[in-house]
Amino acid sequence: MSVTRPATIHGVGLGPGDQDLMSVRADRLLRSATHVAYFRKAGRRGRARTCVEGMLRPDAVEIPMEYPVTTEIPLDDPAYAACLSEFYADVAGRLRELAQGGTEVVVLCEGDPFFYGSFMHLYTRLKDDVPVRVVPAITGMSAAWTATGLPVTWGDDVLTVLMGTLPEAELTRRMAGSDAIVVMKIGRLLPKVRAALDAAGRLDTAWLVECASMAEERVIPLAEAGDRTVPYFSIVIVHGQGRRP
Amino acid sequence: MSVTRPATIHGVGLGPGDQDLMSVRADRLLRSATHVAYFRKAGRRGRARTCVEGMLRPDAVEIPMEYPVTTEIPLDDPAYAACLSEFYADVAGRLRELAQGGTEVVVLCEGDPFFYGSFMHLYTRLKDDVPVRVVPAITGMSAAWTATGLPVTWGDDVLTVLMGTLPEAELTRRMAGSDAIVVMKIGRLLPKVRAALDAAGRLDTAWLVECASMAEERVIPLAEAGDRTVPYFSIVIVHGQGRRP
Repeated sequence: MSVTRPATIHGVGLGPGDQDLMSVRADRLLRSATHVAYFRKAGRRGRARTCVEGMLRPDAVEIPMEYPVTTEIPLDDPAYAACLSEFYADVAGRLRELAQGGTEVVVLCEGDPFFYGSFMHLYTRLKDDVPVRVVPAITGMSAAWTATGLPVTWGDDVLTVLMGTLPEAELTRRMAGSDAIVVMKIGRLLPKVRAALDAAGRLDTAWLVECASMAEERVIPLAEAGDRTVPYFSIVIVHGQGRRP
Repeated sequence: MSVTRPATIHGVGLGPGDQDLMSVRADRLLRSATHVAYFRKAGRRGRARTCVEGMLRPDAVEIPMEYPVTTEIPLDDPAYAACLSEFYADVAGRLRELAQGGTEVVVLCEGDPFFYGSFMHLYTRLKDDVPVRVVPAITGMSAAWTATGLPVTWGDDVLTVLMGTLPEAELTRRMAGSDAIVVMKIGRLLPKVRAALDAAGRLDTAWLVECASMAEERVIPLAEAGDRTVPYFSIVIVHGQGRRP
């Protein structure tokens, strides 16, 4: 009986969205991949898949991993965690089986895989069973502060990265206490994020960056953003003002 | 009289050090550059220049920009800022002249240019006079947390990025109040950083990453690091423990 050596699962960071900003390693792995897996909302093409349009081999086997829920169940409902946990176990099982059978799989990861990424949920379920390699990437926040045309941190500046999903009072407290600020996962939470920045005295220097590095990129002072609906992946940036000779 | 249109100065992020982790755009700009500028300490080859070994055109004109001081004058001495300010004005002047004469220049930037980078000091002095474009990159901290083999932030985790140069009491206070922690600019400051983590109750889960993504990469629990001398670009990582289904 021949024993198949397990193949590697690659969690490949795609970066902020522009194919030109992918790493040389990511570019090479994507173009040569025979099996490509990615998360998506049911019925959608998927943001990660859209990012690699035109890069995959025509004969690449695609493995969409469709979320059972996204916003239908509240985040703090135990049913939400249970449902997602079952989903991650299921898709991890499919990837584990492929790897154990000798098939290398590339998993598409928006942004940087280990920085608030969905792939982390597969990684923790797979890393003890099969080889898993992670390719870091340019974060969405790097693309966002680059898009503002202003450096984000100088000298000893403290940078705080916050999720828009935090309670407003906590957002305010942390914004007031930091030099530079990044707020991610904005989307429908923009009014709360803006109110927190205002209460922290930081609204007048805050920038809203939508779709950083992509064709639809838009950079506007947050105070002038009005009540527009913004994409989920919008990022708010407040630049530090630290030491500069 | 013919008027020369000014050429572009490119601040190109090299990422954490591994050429394979440079962006496709950075790779292309570096390999085609006719003029390449980079900071270095006098008498050294320079870390940024070393990062691109073997990538430049043989006929590329190299423009080393040698720091007049690094650690000889204390950071808080006004003479330090004055000396650096004159230096930045001088080298910005050389690049401005080249660009205004129609010569495109690629400036090598370790890490991500707008994230605690030296290029920022040139950028602010040049951006109103000649076209300057910035290519973001994978940060050293992304490479560091990837090297630990553990995701750095989950769910609503707050990430705080701190410089080892901050006062110990401030480090302690901010470490105690954050979920995930990154400490950069460690070098000779490791004893202070360790003491601050200990006082904040975070030492036992802290990792020391030296030379992330490079051949000399080393990942060790900080509590076991002893009194070793670590490279300036070492990074301390404390992972968040947030929500995970």
